[in-house]
Amino acid sequence: MTFDITPIGLVESPLTDPGSAPRQPDEGAPAATLVFNPDVLEGLRGVQAGDEIFVLTWLDRARRDLLTVHPRGDRTRPLEGVFNTRAPHRPNPIGLHRTRVTAVEGLRVRVANLEALNGTPIVDIKPILNEDIGQR
Amino acid sequence: MTFDITPIGLVESPLTDPGSAPRQPDEGAPAATLVFNPDVLEGLRGVQAGDEIFVLTWLDRARRDLLTVHPRGDRTRPLEGVFNTRAPHRPNPIGLHRTRVTAVEGLRVRVANLEALNGTPIVDIKPILNEDIGQR
Repeated sequence: MTFDITPIGLVESPLTDPGSAPRQPDEGAPAATLVFNPDVLEGLRGVQAGDEIFVLTWLDRARRDLLTVHPRGDRTRPLEGVFNTRAPHRPNPIGLHRTRVTAVEGLRVRVANLEALNGTPIVDIKPILNEDIGQR
Repeated sequence: MTFDITPIGLVESPLTDPGSAPRQPDEGAPAATLVFNPDVLEGLRGVQAGDEIFVLTWLDRARRDLLTVHPRGDRTRPLEGVFNTRAPHRPNPIGLHRTRVTAVEGLRVRVANLEALNGTPIVDIKPILNEDIGQR
């Protein structure tokens, strides 16, 4: 059983080199632009500057055949299951990125920071709910 | 361009009826069990009771052809873009669920609450980071 994921857009970012990309957003991820495909424009209705969102990406340069990794690529640390890490390498390499919308111009949504490489396919965006951050 | 998602397991839940499923976890989502496929067992290394995690699912009963919805299915509310809602209906119906691990027995991971229907495919789990919840 498999399902087809169809990207809804692409990340435009100054980050181009996997080796130098920050591993987490607090490590200096730059601003980026989410460039959506024309056929999903209507889905963006209501998205506006100031929104806190999750961006879901397809980490197309990740390996899907790894089930354990050394955390943060540090070989002195013991192997951990990929589901206990945020490594890009995992059976379904979906990236989950929290960020904030700073501007919306039609199909171009500018966000404050994003640790995804230039050209990374976008598969979904979602507003952040209180439940996501442990508030009820 | 499409990518193949391969489920890594299935949700076992008392929730079976889409019509009566809670829409958000604070509306009474029951405990559930994440039943992983034998071939991803190693990926669970380190996952343990007490962990706060995101479960990513494939909402296989959602519609993929909707770009706008009435929030919470309430037709008195104006249509909103699906990317500005958490409706299951969206081009790539990936569910994002925050929950807490309460027990791990091999391939069976028990979680405190999950608003996914019985039989929903699981596509990933990730530990929650401070960055996800707005803490640096």
